[in-house]
Amino acid sequence: MANNDDQFKKVISHAKEYGYVFQSSEIYDGLSAVYDYAQNGVELKKNIRDYWWRAMVQMHDNIVGIDAAIFMHPTTWKASGHVDAFNDPLIDNKDSKKRYRADVLVEDYCLKIEAKIEKEVKKAKKRFGDAFNKEEFLSTNGRVLGYQEKIDTILKRLGKSLENEDLADVKALIEELEIACPLSGSKNWTDVKQFNLMFGTKLGASADSAMDLYLRPETAQGIFVNFLNVQKTGRMKIPFGIAQTGKAFRNEIVARQFIFRMREFEQMEMQYFIKPGTQKEWFDYWKETRLKWHKSLGLGEDNYRFHDHEKLAHYADAATDIEFKFPFGFKELEGIHSRTDFDLKQHEEYSGKKLQYFDNEDNTSYTPYVLETSIGLDRMFLAVFSNSLQDETLEDGSERTVLKLPAVLAPTKAAILPLVKKDEGLTKMAKDIVDDLKWDFNVTYDEKDAVGRRYRRQDAAGTPFCITVDGESLENNTVTIRHRDTMEQKRVKVEELRDIIKKEVDVKEWLMKM
Amino acid sequence: MANNDDQFKKVISHAKEYGYVFQSSEIYDGLSAVYDYAQNGVELKKNIRDYWWRAMVQMHDNIVGIDAAIFMHPTTWKASGHVDAFNDPLIDNKDSKKRYRADVLVEDYCLKIEAKIEKEVKKAKKRFGDAFNKEEFLSTNGRVLGYQEKIDTILKRLGKSLENEDLADVKALIEELEIACPLSGSKNWTDVKQFNLMFGTKLGASADSAMDLYLRPETAQGIFVNFLNVQKTGRMKIPFGIAQTGKAFRNEIVARQFIFRMREFEQMEMQYFIKPGTQKEWFDYWKETRLKWHKSLGLGEDNYRFHDHEKLAHYADAATDIEFKFPFGFKELEGIHSRTDFDLKQHEEYSGKKLQYFDNEDNTSYTPYVLETSIGLDRMFLAVFSNSLQDETLEDGSERTVLKLPAVLAPTKAAILPLVKKDEGLTKMAKDIVDDLKWDFNVTYDEKDAVGRRYRRQDAAGTPFCITVDGESLENNTVTIRHRDTMEQKRVKVEELRDIIKKEVDVKEWLMKM
Repeated sequence: MANNDDQFKKVISHAKEYGYVFQSSEIYDGLSAVYDYAQNGVELKKNIRDYWWRAMVQMHDNIVGIDAAIFMHPTTWKASGHVDAFNDPLIDNKDSKKRYRADVLVEDYCLKIEAKIEKEVKKAKKRFGDAFNKEEFLSTNGRVLGYQEKIDTILKRLGKSLENEDLADVKALIEELEIACPLSGSKNWTDVKQFNLMFGTKLGASADSAMDLYLRPETAQGIFVNFLNVQKTGRMKIPFGIAQTGKAFRNEIVARQFIFRMREFEQMEMQYFIKPGTQKEWFDYWKETRLKWHKSLGLGEDNYRFHDHEKLAHYADAATDIEFKFPFGFKELEGIHSRTDFDLKQHEEYSGKKLQYFDNEDNTSYTPYVLETSIGLDRMFLAVFSNSLQDETLEDGSERTVLKLPAVLAPTKAAILPLVKKDEGLTKMAKDIVDDLKWDFNVTYDEKDAVGRRYRRQDAAGTPFCITVDGESLENNTVTIRHRDTMEQKRVKVEELRDIIKKEVDVKEWLMKM
Repeated sequence: MANNDDQFKKVISHAKEYGYVFQSSEIYDGLSAVYDYAQNGVELKKNIRDYWWRAMVQMHDNIVGIDAAIFMHPTTWKASGHVDAFNDPLIDNKDSKKRYRADVLVEDYCLKIEAKIEKEVKKAKKRFGDAFNKEEFLSTNGRVLGYQEKIDTILKRLGKSLENEDLADVKALIEELEIACPLSGSKNWTDVKQFNLMFGTKLGASADSAMDLYLRPETAQGIFVNFLNVQKTGRMKIPFGIAQTGKAFRNEIVARQFIFRMREFEQMEMQYFIKPGTQKEWFDYWKETRLKWHKSLGLGEDNYRFHDHEKLAHYADAATDIEFKFPFGFKELEGIHSRTDFDLKQHEEYSGKKLQYFDNEDNTSYTPYVLETSIGLDRMFLAVFSNSLQDETLEDGSERTVLKLPAVLAPTKAAILPLVKKDEGLTKMAKDIVDDLKWDFNVTYDEKDAVGRRYRRQDAAGTPFCITVDGESLENNTVTIRHRDTMEQKRVKVEELRDIIKKEVDVKEWLMKM
């Protein structure tokens, strides 16, 4: 755990030092849970977005994109359920004035009981040695069973109270358990209140006519309200998909873990419109297809797992998460949801307009079912970045930090280095190579410091190739090309460079691995 | 004028019919001055953004990008001047309850006087025939001179009152001129009040600790506050640039002209950090460079003109607009501003932090000057789209509507058409070509209707190539390729298609025209 914490801290500081992610408004001491993508981060983010778009939209003749505005008519969020139900139950401590999520307070209390169980397990293990059977112990030891029963009772009551919106009982539970504010130690609590997570704003200047708007908390609704316009003007036939990338906003109380949970974030969503009854088949298809996409990036097959939801949201008839092994454990990276016709039906009801598809083959009209794939672009960024950051001990015993980004996603594809800065012949030739390659790739010129140090710098920045111009280059028009991951160097002709790099960084080559 | 209005209406309806732009939240009867980009629009917008990014960031070794969040620390907007000075003066009519921009009411009044001058000119022209000299008439006719003097007096007073924030005098002016509400005809006005154009929202859940945030009204400030972090981690040397594309928001009172002026819009900005004293040279360089970029798209050289600002914003020491000929006349498409060190100095003052650059060569530190290029992505979209939409009369007397988008920006690069839908050999071969080409281009398959009708449909959608698979194709693996603009058809080998298309649509080929 300590190791993972250290690794995560290293990820955050490396992200700043190498121009990937800065805290937002840092000169004003930052804005909580909001981040800016820096000069390398913007390119990595863009490359992830493009890689998704190419795979989802360009490669599928029956999937098209849209780019709906962040501002939508407020009734959209009545229909979607966000106005009424997109809430967190909050409670204030009257002494510290600190605000908490009531459910998290109760869950944290249960975690403490669980820690007691773990303590009993450790003690017993020590006592019984090899003879210790954990499962048997957990199911027979009286004290442990008592703890477990207490946890179950508490969580059951919490779940029921939240489901019934019985917030008074949530408060009662906190008081009965004598939960104290971690800050003040006081048990002096306010009532529990629901707090809507949408950011609000006002459109229009006149006090009379101003309209209460929300910043969209998800991009999906922009697809649903445009479904029929896209289907008709694009002459789409079911099954077909609409894909979108864009910003969404949630006023999270507990925003944390760097860019994993931010108040402003970017989603990449695709809604696949299907015939009712076929949802199981498409659910399986998209589970498999999306996992293949992730695996094509080569971050390690063991770093992914499915987590099927047992408790389903009211609109879903099946749901799974693709979880990724972040520095802080397996967490949701992408969600795949069978949303039935819930959303389109809601918009039909609230708009009074039919959102139906006419099936030429069957001569029937129906409201389509929807299969959704939804991925957080910032989470994907964190997955790629944290997984790629590695410390290596080399054969000569020295250490290097290397950012082994998939070459297709790397911000800069190659650094061109004159071996000696003062040699005008070398610097000119290096700059000429930059001027030639930049037509096809993001490349950079680097002449400062000894070449070994420049290699380390480019390793840490994630650049897949270093191209070095030396004395021999001037004689026979060759250079050395060094691979970031293997550190192998090869002498090649200058005119071969474009094809060598292209083969390694081209989206097409990577998508073929799917 | 009527013709231009008609053309503009046609642009708007074509944008909807062919899946480029939909009104936002249309099923809820729309949201004023907010639009969604549809399946073709999203690709055109993306291609424009990429074309700009390639030219500005990838092609310049000393320009890098960033992607700052929409949410920024609120002090940013104190420092930038937006909290205090980003206002419109508004006035309400008490009878109609309608709100107006006070300065626009006065300007509209002056336009009416100008119309009277035009009337005098027409009358005189009729009377004097060929002997009529307009300039002489304007400078000698007593009635015209009276009108002109009145206009000058009014506008001078308005300008002075606004500059001095003397809103009572703006109201007095409206009353003295006896300006009536166009809706109610009443002259019963409220006081004039300043209305800030920024959208506000609240961050955080607790009433005590909630922070008033703004949705950024421009992307530029995200670059300024990150200037030093980018310079240091990117080891940038002056002159260098930081580029950014992203959403900005303005609560416009008079939002109109389709996507030309929206409440939510996207900017493409670049701030070039330079040594004080070199701003004139860089101003000229970027004027020329940006105009070349526009002209490389081939929309017609006569459609651009510079409009140098005589009245400069408080932060600028030179400014020009690149204006484009929209259906409603020449309007600003891009702004090029010499912003001096105003912004960085303001942020130094408000943050208490030094935002200086250390110049190795001179051994001096200074606050850089800034040269800005700023273009509205949505305006650029409208420029490209409206300019490309053309009605043509063909040799045989028939009409066609064709969207002559620059091929590099076209959403779909080629449509693959089997000549006969019922021939399985043809449809299979056409689909195989789609499956092959889609690895490199956005392509589409279209089998519905007679082939001539399909050509027209693809012309109107802006697709540069139609590839038709016919009986001969099955025999010798050739197809016909038809060019959208010339309608010429050529028979080519299937294996040549990739290179033929690439040559016409590749960003690199287009940028070489700069």
